[in-house]
Amino acid sequence: MSSIKTEIRTGAYYDSVILMQLQRSLADLPKVIEAGVVMATEANKDLLDQIGLLVAEIKGAKADDLVIVIKAENEKAARSAIEQVDDLVAARRSRDTAGQDFLPKSLESAAKMLPDAKWTLISVPGRYAAGVSREALRLGTHVFLYSDNVSLEEEIDLKKKGAEKGLLVMGPDCGTAIINGVGLGFANQVLRGSIGMVAASGTGLQQVSVRIHQLGSGLTHALGTGGRDLTSRVGGLTARMGLELLNRDPETKVIVLVSKPPDPEAADGIINFARRLSKPVVINFIGYGSNLHQIDNLHFTTTFDETAAAAVKLAADFELPQQEEDLPLDQFNSGQRYLRGLFSGGTLAYEALLILAYYLPNVYSNVPINKEYRLKNSLVSQGHTIVDLGEDEFTVGRLHPMMDHELRIRRLEAEAEDPETALIFLDVVLGYGSHPDPAAELVPAIKAVRSKANKAGRYLEVVTVLSGTDADPQDMKSQEEQFLKAGARVFHSNDNAVRFTGRLLRALEGNKGQENNGSFTPVDLESLTGEFSAINVGLESFAESLFAQNVSVVQVDWKPAAGGDADLMALLEKMKR
Amino acid sequence: MSSIKTEIRTGAYYDSVILMQLQRSLADLPKVIEAGVVMATEANKDLLDQIGLLVAEIKGAKADDLVIVIKAENEKAARSAIEQVDDLVAARRSRDTAGQDFLPKSLESAAKMLPDAKWTLISVPGRYAAGVSREALRLGTHVFLYSDNVSLEEEIDLKKKGAEKGLLVMGPDCGTAIINGVGLGFANQVLRGSIGMVAASGTGLQQVSVRIHQLGSGLTHALGTGGRDLTSRVGGLTARMGLELLNRDPETKVIVLVSKPPDPEAADGIINFARRLSKPVVINFIGYGSNLHQIDNLHFTTTFDETAAAAVKLAADFELPQQEEDLPLDQFNSGQRYLRGLFSGGTLAYEALLILAYYLPNVYSNVPINKEYRLKNSLVSQGHTIVDLGEDEFTVGRLHPMMDHELRIRRLEAEAEDPETALIFLDVVLGYGSHPDPAAELVPAIKAVRSKANKAGRYLEVVTVLSGTDADPQDMKSQEEQFLKAGARVFHSNDNAVRFTGRLLRALEGNKGQENNGSFTPVDLESLTGEFSAINVGLESFAESLFAQNVSVVQVDWKPAAGGDADLMALLEKMKR
Repeated sequence: MSSIKTEIRTGAYYDSVILMQLQRSLADLPKVIEAGVVMATEANKDLLDQIGLLVAEIKGAKADDLVIVIKAENEKAARSAIEQVDDLVAARRSRDTAGQDFLPKSLESAAKMLPDAKWTLISVPGRYAAGVSREALRLGTHVFLYSDNVSLEEEIDLKKKGAEKGLLVMGPDCGTAIINGVGLGFANQVLRGSIGMVAASGTGLQQVSVRIHQLGSGLTHALGTGGRDLTSRVGGLTARMGLELLNRDPETKVIVLVSKPPDPEAADGIINFARRLSKPVVINFIGYGSNLHQIDNLHFTTTFDETAAAAVKLAADFELPQQEEDLPLDQFNSGQRYLRGLFSGGTLAYEALLILAYYLPNVYSNVPINKEYRLKNSLVSQGHTIVDLGEDEFTVGRLHPMMDHELRIRRLEAEAEDPETALIFLDVVLGYGSHPDPAAELVPAIKAVRSKANKAGRYLEVVTVLSGTDADPQDMKSQEEQFLKAGARVFHSNDNAVRFTGRLLRALEGNKGQENNGSFTPVDLESLTGEFSAINVGLESFAESLFAQNVSVVQVDWKPAAGGDADLMALLEKMKR
Repeated sequence: MSSIKTEIRTGAYYDSVILMQLQRSLADLPKVIEAGVVMATEANKDLLDQIGLLVAEIKGAKADDLVIVIKAENEKAARSAIEQVDDLVAARRSRDTAGQDFLPKSLESAAKMLPDAKWTLISVPGRYAAGVSREALRLGTHVFLYSDNVSLEEEIDLKKKGAEKGLLVMGPDCGTAIINGVGLGFANQVLRGSIGMVAASGTGLQQVSVRIHQLGSGLTHALGTGGRDLTSRVGGLTARMGLELLNRDPETKVIVLVSKPPDPEAADGIINFARRLSKPVVINFIGYGSNLHQIDNLHFTTTFDETAAAAVKLAADFELPQQEEDLPLDQFNSGQRYLRGLFSGGTLAYEALLILAYYLPNVYSNVPINKEYRLKNSLVSQGHTIVDLGEDEFTVGRLHPMMDHELRIRRLEAEAEDPETALIFLDVVLGYGSHPDPAAELVPAIKAVRSKANKAGRYLEVVTVLSGTDADPQDMKSQEEQFLKAGARVFHSNDNAVRFTGRLLRALEGNKGQENNGSFTPVDLESLTGEFSAINVGLESFAESLFAQNVSVVQVDWKPAAGGDADLMALLEKMKR
């Protein structure tokens, strides 16, 4: 008849590799049917229950108790297995020190053994992890923090300390990173290349890096941040430091940012930050439905495959340095600031509003996307304004403004008189049905208002989009020449015309919107590009991986101070601060 | 001293071209300073006010009163101008019949003059437009309805009538279309090519078609629907008929669908409809933040430029017919239906949930995107399930499932026992830090459960994604061979693996989700591809445009029946039904 024996150890510390291997060793003993070696959490108790091992003693155990349970063919075999636990643990321990003659007992002595170490990998249980991380920061190393179950408060505290000293805190719950070709934690052996990554998610980063490799391209560095970095409370501090660092790295041409969808506030913050970088950034906030797929240097993607493909394409196409755009900012006088868009095409107006939302804080309209910005009176502009003159309110008993320019010319004159107007936007839709010669009507009006403004000491930018083809009856080429002669700027794509308008007026506004939350000391580029060496505390397999990659690593023979007693540990740490 | 004279005409009908030209003729008379000829809407009164012409008599006029107002240098000149109104209108009328000897007075006689006409263009004032459209449908022609101010009820009624007869009702408020190279209303002269369009928006369609031309590609046909077609009440009836028609058109390789963002319900309906077509469809619901940029044959874009570029690229790449995918649907027994995804990578699980949302109605998880689908118990699957075994609940005091497969193998065995399980999904993350030989543990388990299921009369599909590179320490190639030998399907991209899973299980479910709201008689393809000829009622410039494009057109000398009296008109129309 089978027999079940259990042992419960309270307050003991073993790392999870030892527990797994102990369980396997026990299960392999003669006449043992099933063995469980787990912390007594509710989930683990459920699991023991499923395999018939949840006996009465275990039900009462607490989450930080270690439970050993053996089901054997008879009582003797079960008892014998339990009795071998300590021997098996000891045997395992003695096999552990592969490649290292001496294991330092503390981070401090590890740092003395390897004074060039710039990185500390930490994978001790969560309740000890913040203390070890603080120690690592004190010693001046970046922290790769694999441990989970670290509180949000501890995370914020660690990241602030790191930001002050220009040290990265990747994690908690950071599974992966690649520094100068060296994989930390879970990481794939990928080709070196010109794509840098910052990622909140572990397997997301791995999958994208693997797909980049599969496409024949490669990575410079990949920095993990931990899954909570892009919440509004942490504010993406590690992500910002990482983005700024990769932006300075001369080998990185394109940056990829991957995360589950952040809080809207944190998303806005990190998007604005990324937008000020000089390199293209491919952003995959998995399932984040952005209204534009591309804005300035930012490219939004949805799946990992799409992200990898976009990054590879950009890395192939992109050439630094970008040509600076020549914006006539000096020409305007100080009072000029507003856009006045006078549209005949309703959907062109709609697309303009959509795109401008990424450039200007508020644009009023008679056809607003957001009702808050509805013009009080469609006949009178306020601030930045886009009017759709083809709306019903303007066209009852009147020809559409694509055929009859009278109303638009009157409005053009009114806007040009306004000393706050900086830029007037006109769409000119060519083709059948439209006015046979729009330039004949609009160009003299443009000339007149620009010259009048000029006399009043103002510079009036007129942006036109000629929407038509070279086969249209109006003769596109001659239309274009006439608009150019009147000093108007001519585009053939509404998209391009509106983005130009957005860039110009945004620049004219100055960088008022540039908040600087999350200021930090920039990370020394040498931390990435110099020779990699590290201290490892916790899972020995991480040290073994580094060893296999031929880099210097010191494993610390770490045990919780004060035998893991929380009060005593807190006291000890206080004394060190 | 200047003088203002006005005249108000009640219940008179003039088309807007006549009003515009009358205003210009009056303004050109000697000593006339300013002239206004408008319907007395509030907006128009405001406009008159802005130029100092809103005198007391006009303030009291109603929206369907015609107001003529003249400001001249003296009273005599003002009065003389007013007296010339009727002569100027008559003179204009006699110039109108360019290219046509005889103007029929009714649609019916126009149809007799041009019996091959398949299209009627209607641009009479809104209050008359529905009646004229009904007449055109009675005569068996498709309707291009430019008029606005047609009620939603009239629109629904017209579209239902059209759907019964296989006739398109494009509009109301439809500005543009291209049929077999012929531009209707506002339309550009674009290259012929292999891209077909369906669009709710006028200038949106024009801008995309123009950009396609600028990129050197071209269009087959472009069908307008009017701006309200994609509301839930109209249900996209014209859009569906148009999509279905273009899907049958042998010249069309790629379809583009453009609209302002539809109601969510209408958007879902039209997306599902488009997804069942056999051709790629590029969808631009301007500013519609879709969670995936591509799903099956659908490609979501945000701006007109992006839309044109995507369509051109697809038209260049796409080859009909598509290879049918070989899905092992016959192998399953009738009770098998569910997905069980056992993930070690949290973000891979997240991406899977995101993508599957487009394939399966509800997938339960311990890490659901939508909280409604949270598993009651993470240890027990329900329906389609995706479990992230790397979540904290499973990893306290235990190695991550990327290193230790024990928990996952137990779960695999449990899922395989469930007679409703059809497909088991496993991610296998290779690389440093991960298990050194996942196949050694997972493959025997997969073999065992597949063989056991087989004995029980079930076919178990096992889909694995090997996330890694050929340089990873596990030897990707040998791993892959082992999984293949066990009868598992192997992918190297999570995206591809999940989409395959979605397609398979969706097909297994049958087409239950296929609602058929908006059924209609398919439009005769010959309407598009045959020689174009049309009847035009309203704006003569539309007939002139067709004439300039060398197609047969008959202009109707239309006036509202019963002098525009609404009651009498309703009575007359009733008699015809």
